Amino acid sequence: MFVRVQETAYLGSFGALAGWDQATYIPRKGHAHRAMMQATLARLLHQRSTDPRIGEMLARVEGSDLVHDPTSVEAVNVREWRRSYDLQTKIPERLAVELAQATSLGQATWEEARPKNDWASFKPILQKIFDLTREAADAIGYQQERYDALLDQYEPGATTRQLEPIFRRVREATVDLLQRIEGTSRKPDPAILRRYYPRAAQEALGKEVIARIGFDLEAGRLDVTAHPFMQGIGPGDVRLTTRYDEHFFNPAFFGTIHEMGHGVYGQGLPSEHYGTPMGTEVSLGIHESQSRTWENLVGRSLGFWRYFFPRAQEHFEALREVRLEDFHFAVNAVKPSLIRIEADEVTYNLHIMIRFELELAILRGDLSLEDAPEAWNAKYREYLGIESAEIKDGLMQDVHWSAGLIGYFPTYSLGNLYGAQFFQQAEKELGNLEEQFARGEFAPLLEWQRRNIHQQGSRYWPRDLVRQVTGEDLNPEHLIRYLNAKFGALYGV
Amino acid sequence: MFVRVQETAYLGSFGALAGWDQATYIPRKGHAHRAMMQATLARLLHQRSTDPRIGEMLARVEGSDLVHDPTSVEAVNVREWRRSYDLQTKIPERLAVELAQATSLGQATWEEARPKNDWASFKPILQKIFDLTREAADAIGYQQERYDALLDQYEPGATTRQLEPIFRRVREATVDLLQRIEGTSRKPDPAILRRYYPRAAQEALGKEVIARIGFDLEAGRLDVTAHPFMQGIGPGDVRLTTRYDEHFFNPAFFGTIHEMGHGVYGQGLPSEHYGTPMGTEVSLGIHESQSRTWENLVGRSLGFWRYFFPRAQEHFEALREVRLEDFHFAVNAVKPSLIRIEADEVTYNLHIMIRFELELAILRGDLSLEDAPEAWNAKYREYLGIESAEIKDGLMQDVHWSAGLIGYFPTYSLGNLYGAQFFQQAEKELGNLEEQFARGEFAPLLEWQRRNIHQQGSRYWPRDLVRQVTGEDLNPEHLIRYLNAKFGALYGV
Repeated sequence: MFVRVQETAYLGSFGALAGWDQATYIPRKGHAHRAMMQATLARLLHQRSTDPRIGEMLARVEGSDLVHDPTSVEAVNVREWRRSYDLQTKIPERLAVELAQATSLGQATWEEARPKNDWASFKPILQKIFDLTREAADAIGYQQERYDALLDQYEPGATTRQLEPIFRRVREATVDLLQRIEGTSRKPDPAILRRYYPRAAQEALGKEVIARIGFDLEAGRLDVTAHPFMQGIGPGDVRLTTRYDEHFFNPAFFGTIHEMGHGVYGQGLPSEHYGTPMGTEVSLGIHESQSRTWENLVGRSLGFWRYFFPRAQEHFEALREVRLEDFHFAVNAVKPSLIRIEADEVTYNLHIMIRFELELAILRGDLSLEDAPEAWNAKYREYLGIESAEIKDGLMQDVHWSAGLIGYFPTYSLGNLYGAQFFQQAEKELGNLEEQFARGEFAPLLEWQRRNIHQQGSRYWPRDLVRQVTGEDLNPEHLIRYLNAKFGALYGV
Repeated sequence: MFVRVQETAYLGSFGALAGWDQATYIPRKGHAHRAMMQATLARLLHQRSTDPRIGEMLARVEGSDLVHDPTSVEAVNVREWRRSYDLQTKIPERLAVELAQATSLGQATWEEARPKNDWASFKPILQKIFDLTREAADAIGYQQERYDALLDQYEPGATTRQLEPIFRRVREATVDLLQRIEGTSRKPDPAILRRYYPRAAQEALGKEVIARIGFDLEAGRLDVTAHPFMQGIGPGDVRLTTRYDEHFFNPAFFGTIHEMGHGVYGQGLPSEHYGTPMGTEVSLGIHESQSRTWENLVGRSLGFWRYFFPRAQEHFEALREVRLEDFHFAVNAVKPSLIRIEADEVTYNLHIMIRFELELAILRGDLSLEDAPEAWNAKYREYLGIESAEIKDGLMQDVHWSAGLIGYFPTYSLGNLYGAQFFQQAEKELGNLEEQFARGEFAPLLEWQRRNIHQQGSRYWPRDLVRQVTGEDLNPEHLIRYLNAKFGALYGV
């Protein structure tokens, strides 16, 4: 079985490479053929991963001595193979096909309807997607609540009961912090970041920074794309992408470090376990914790810029006369905005809370899609103090729901929560990290992540990994303390 | 069966893309994983293409009404599926594995031994490869001569009996022309081509030229690699590669047009037949006829440069004071040399004749590997008037034999022969082509190729295609006449 599963992973690597190519170098007219290639591969991989022989083999080893120790390589692999086998086989083929068709149509409809603020065209297919997703959740099964079945696909072991109080606490504390920030007259000058930043210099600085941090550019690449992502092809081949705006410093710089955070996770996985759960990232939330840590906790820290600002000044004429402190304040500007992907570190989680609360209400039957746009706006008014006049910047802004990704949004905030908790544990063990960053020392933190997180593969589910690494359950106070301290100091509140 | 075969083609496209990536963008440390990916895919594709159900299906349709007309789509596909099924299944698995191992070791040994002129290390594995290849030829079977079984893999329907007199005639006529050229005092000045040609300008000119000729850059790319090649991924996605030398005009410029010649064949295949023989290039020789036509018959013609030389002068400072006629003479310089891939249009075929004659002698048992290096040198002395003191520039210069590609070399000269015969037929139908080139008109020739060659896929075997398109059998006099006329005029002989 092991060999066959690993073979499937190698075949999956072709899909990953082809996906990367689709977003970077494919010629315009190659897309139709590529779609046929990917459909063929997806069919083959699905056949292989739902092969009844897998179920038979699993039944044979489960409960055997082989899996006695639940954190042994064998037990972890069997546990995760069971998870994905069940996920893939519990949904009846009829429903899987309907879901695939609905989400394919959903994305196409969203693409077309969104720029036109055309909610009426989008609503019926979105309703269908929610209905089918509810059906899929029931087919997968759950203990406490239907939403858990969805959540669990992206964040194994996470439950609504666990998340609700944590997210409520984050939301309340964030709204409070935001109100204090809004009430003060101390403001950064974000116009600094809108000066001229030549592309070649942005690329040079970006590569310099990620190489210094420890991303191995001989075991990866950095390319350009429209919607940046990280794609692992396999051991020794982890690819980052970014996009350049010559009149805005942030997207490429922080985007590159963000993807690099995903990338070092990919490069840090135990390659001897490639193709099996032990060699695979455990969840989207843990993945996001790595990217957000490097982007925000490191990349937007004063210590980091103490080291890199002089380098940035060498690269960019625009920064020659700028003070380090002003630059640091600018890259940490907090401002309520409508668009999640442009949000700052403070308001970002509010965007997620809103989506989480709405998904949950819809899945529970407490909210109809009919009423969802107004419920969306009401929450933006309440938490962020703003609302969109146009649904394209409101409920229709994200592609996720149209693609059937319901229960996915929470992983973004989980990333921030895990990240803050891990970071403070790392600091306990390694001493003041900002001082290390100021000396250009990033290896201690990276090595700590490697040892505690990357090398673990899927050994522990996220909840258990957090407990294992930090000695306590996921606790929102770490993130809240970090945000209050950092932004309290910056804004003097 | 059709669907399954087409699925196999889509899976093959992943291998093609991964191969292209391996030669262009893969990070250094990604090669080990890539090798595992490719091995997995190769195994899967081999399983699929030797599936006994294919044999059963073929047996069922062969001789049926479906394939009554031998040039119908159905008959062509059945004929070619039979060909490749037989080729893949006639070689016993034991022999296939031994061949794969020997050629893998062979290439690695060659790589290491060649720079050291280490024939002693290379000879045993080369002997093994020749022995296994002989065995494979016997397993495949042949009518007249063992070498035919090898030839036929690369050039369906070609036989030794057909090629021997043609190649002999080419060789004698070439040696004669070469002697006349060597005897005259009129010489070009190839130093013109060794001036400074900035890389960016080379790339710009190259792209301009291939776009003008009709290579669709929206359905393909041009990238950089160490050993240039063309790789078709599928309809709408045909990728060229080249390499730049800032102190030598030829490699990138003529390399790019050469690969573009392969590329327009790929772009011209009937995409509605993708994944079946009707949508596939028929042979290496026909492929090479397209690349050599654009590289030499077009790209080294005076008409071509009448149009493009002013553009080249705009791109390159180095050419500002150069006369068109001197430049044209320089890119057509004839000089006997040891290395095949650097050979000019006249001497190139002599390099092939030598390899063909030696392969044949070894396969026939008339020459031992022991004596092959001296036989090699003797032929270089006789035909080209030079010989190598070092075996790395002699018998060990090409990778082909170490990779098991025996019977492959003839396709290079077949490309020149087909090319000249097609070209003169096209000229009969389209009027003076050089005059068209001088006006920047390349569409008539390209459309002619599309119609007569590219769109035919594998409908006709090369011999039949030549007869179909030109009304006569392959005839070396077309190439000989072309070479005598062109180089006779240039050198005044």
